[in-house]
Amino acid sequence: MTQTIKLKLQVLCDHAIAIGPGKADLLDQIVATGSIASAARKMGMSYRRAWQLVDVMNRCWSDRLVETVPGRAAGGARLTETGKTVLGQYRALQHSLDQCAAQNGWHNLATLIRDAPLAHQAEVRGTSTMIDG
Amino acid sequence: MTQTIKLKLQVLCDHAIAIGPGKADLLDQIVATGSIASAARKMGMSYRRAWQLVDVMNRCWSDRLVETVPGRAAGGARLTETGKTVLGQYRALQHSLDQCAAQNGWHNLATLIRDAPLAHQAEVRGTSTMIDG
Repeated sequence: MTQTIKLKLQVLCDHAIAIGPGKADLLDQIVATGSIASAARKMGMSYRRAWQLVDVMNRCWSDRLVETVPGRAAGGARLTETGKTVLGQYRALQHSLDQCAAQNGWHNLATLIRDAPLAHQAEVRGTSTMIDG
Repeated sequence: MTQTIKLKLQVLCDHAIAIGPGKADLLDQIVATGSIASAARKMGMSYRRAWQLVDVMNRCWSDRLVETVPGRAAGGARLTETGKTVLGQYRALQHSLDQCAAQNGWHNLATLIRDAPLAHQAEVRGTSTMIDG
């Protein structure tokens, strides 16, 4: 699938976003780096912001998704079993939807898309054969 | 499908959003009301904002999606043939993806979601059996 179709899969808990593309990427980085602070740096966001995202995730699911690692240097973090399950199922669903889109007409839309937007038009004009006043 | 999974389908033209949920709803309202101004009012947005969204759409596809209707009172607008095609295919793809999600595990995620987020926790605590210091 080309990059013209973007599927943004969000799972809602009431009005909060329990997981979405950004939060999933953050979970990936926590797994990769072993801490929220390092994950935040990798993603170019403040530690405070990363902590806020983790906090929302930790309040939306049947169990926390991220826990601190006791006994390690301050800041160590890991996914809980629920966190691993949620992340894995989110990625699997994303993949299924990407395939589904490819099989269900995204290419029809893609053929109608320009490579880049036209320069700004002065106004929305009608295509009537009437002479514009 | 319940409301816990939200699929936000966006079609990109370079970095612009050529169509997404909000723009598609705006197109629906232009069809329903016959003008950008009325559509804007229906959606609780300013005319200026609605016009900006129409302008982006009109620059991203092989042809404009919305055109003014010559000969009518100021502000009449309608979808072009390309507009009708794009809107129809967008809605069809949305529907296919909703069905695909239902068949591909969204329920697994849904069973792990709380009805509403827990009250704010003071900190992310470990689940170790060690006595918290």
